[in-house]
Amino acid sequence: MKKERIFVFKTKPTIISHAAVVGKKEGEGPMGKEFDYIFEDSKAGQDSWEQSESRIHREAVTRAIKKSGYKNEDIDMIISGDLLDQCTGTAFSIKDLGIPFTGVYGACSTMALSMLVAATMTEAKLCTNTVAATSSHFCSAEKQFRMPLEYGGQRPPTAQWTATASGAVVVSDKGKGVKITSGLIGTIQDMGITDANNMGAAMAPAACDTISKYLKGTKTKPSDYDMILTGDLGVVGTELLLELLEKQESIDISGVHNDCGLMIYDLNEQDVNSGGSGCGCSGAVVCSNILRRMEEGELKKILFIGTGALLSAVSPLQSEPVPGIAHLVCLEA
Amino acid sequence: MKKERIFVFKTKPTIISHAAVVGKKEGEGPMGKEFDYIFEDSKAGQDSWEQSESRIHREAVTRAIKKSGYKNEDIDMIISGDLLDQCTGTAFSIKDLGIPFTGVYGACSTMALSMLVAATMTEAKLCTNTVAATSSHFCSAEKQFRMPLEYGGQRPPTAQWTATASGAVVVSDKGKGVKITSGLIGTIQDMGITDANNMGAAMAPAACDTISKYLKGTKTKPSDYDMILTGDLGVVGTELLLELLEKQESIDISGVHNDCGLMIYDLNEQDVNSGGSGCGCSGAVVCSNILRRMEEGELKKILFIGTGALLSAVSPLQSEPVPGIAHLVCLEA
Repeated sequence: MKKERIFVFKTKPTIISHAAVVGKKEGEGPMGKEFDYIFEDSKAGQDSWEQSESRIHREAVTRAIKKSGYKNEDIDMIISGDLLDQCTGTAFSIKDLGIPFTGVYGACSTMALSMLVAATMTEAKLCTNTVAATSSHFCSAEKQFRMPLEYGGQRPPTAQWTATASGAVVVSDKGKGVKITSGLIGTIQDMGITDANNMGAAMAPAACDTISKYLKGTKTKPSDYDMILTGDLGVVGTELLLELLEKQESIDISGVHNDCGLMIYDLNEQDVNSGGSGCGCSGAVVCSNILRRMEEGELKKILFIGTGALLSAVSPLQSEPVPGIAHLVCLEA
Repeated sequence: MKKERIFVFKTKPTIISHAAVVGKKEGEGPMGKEFDYIFEDSKAGQDSWEQSESRIHREAVTRAIKKSGYKNEDIDMIISGDLLDQCTGTAFSIKDLGIPFTGVYGACSTMALSMLVAATMTEAKLCTNTVAATSSHFCSAEKQFRMPLEYGGQRPPTAQWTATASGAVVVSDKGKGVKITSGLIGTIQDMGITDANNMGAAMAPAACDTISKYLKGTKTKPSDYDMILTGDLGVVGTELLLELLEKQESIDISGVHNDCGLMIYDLNEQDVNSGGSGCGCSGAVVCSNILRRMEEGELKKILFIGTGALLSAVSPLQSEPVPGIAHLVCLEA
């Protein structure tokens, strides 16, 4: 096996602020009190689902900037992306902020990818303050990838619920906060999954590949971390990940593993089948609960692995598989 | 005006190889002899336009790697993206190469953006060899953004022809070749353009903003460069750019300006209206003719400004404007 490049950030890029903004359903879940703002209206006062997603995304970005104490003109770069075609959720969100923009695409792994690109720009000493962000919206995602909401399609038990949510961090070369100390950009894994209603199965092999490469590359073990947090594998994907790591790699992460898709909703009460998903799911959980607990000292060192399924609305109809990708960020308090 | 961050690459990331692969029409144009490979079949032997784009993209990436003398396992990262929904042109292209993947989205500016992110990873000393690439395909783009080809829709004179093309470079921290010495990541400009058949007008203000910020930030003038090359403004956008720079910024680049969208086709003979466009247009022109002329000493120092229009198939139907973005790369022989 090729030795993957672990990104070690010697400059220790620092998350000096973070914000998470969500929709009504996410606000009613177990993390409700963690979020900076909850839009009670699914359309967030806009005319379309797409505009609503942009509105929520902008709210997270502007709140993160405000909490950092900086102004827009102090921010050198926004690194962001989303699930909408041509990343328009992001583009229309930030177009009037006057901040340079690096668009990234990693499907639901985008929060981890944007943090890694932000940390890389800090490490290269090309940026002082950057924003890393992402968003998703249940209604814009359903409309685009699956069925019109009005159709009332039945969701199989493996299906996940795309979170209406956005997360944003300000990453700086100085200041107080959680440090991005290392990471690993993932390699696409294609196990031939063709069920567009089972994203967990599509993403679990990628998470397995990235986690095992990182642990081997850094010669660390699961118990060295307070948490190994995947993005949005949900119930089905989590079970697969634990099994794959155990059987293929002899790595047992069950004692420290959690998944943002399992945390954001009450799986018994909120009718979300296999759990939450979408770029905003891990974005909002990491940018609220997780970073707060790190700042308060409850969690000292964690691995956050964003997980993405690389499909479009067209690709499954052309019998293409759903390849997965997973990007890993090591965060230290 | 906020002073934009000019990215100055002290490590001088080097383009050690490049490849350009195109379709039949591009092969019949004035650059025909420059390209590494021409697919005579629009479907490139595949079953769909989308798969054809992925095939062409993969051909450019694998040819660039082969020409570098390295093997896949020596490449630390592919940085790439395209115009297809969820960047599936790229994902399905490279999924079996076993190389870590950073997905970027900059619409038709993607070649410049991927080169800048590659150079940033080199500058941060996180990668040794990276691939920066992009692609577009006339048929997959028409199908997705405009009309089914079979409809035979009339194209207004302002419309551009999406190039069936892909370009790729291998960027290394050592070796011989053209250097990426500096750059500027652009800021979204929204002038309220709503005509999805006039991308040149949507992108020209962004090119104007990026070029003037870079020239002012580096205290250089147009005559310091052998060429100021925009991505795909075409006839309409080029005229607007020259006028905007002259009137708003008192900068005259007319003596050194060219545009990949004006170079890739014979505008009199090939029925492409306002010229070429698409990520692959500037990708293929830069990764063939331009880099060859730099390597041969004809061009010593150029600015390449990738230009992108940030729309989806949905956004114009929702009366959204078409914001533009432009990313600049300074290349030195």
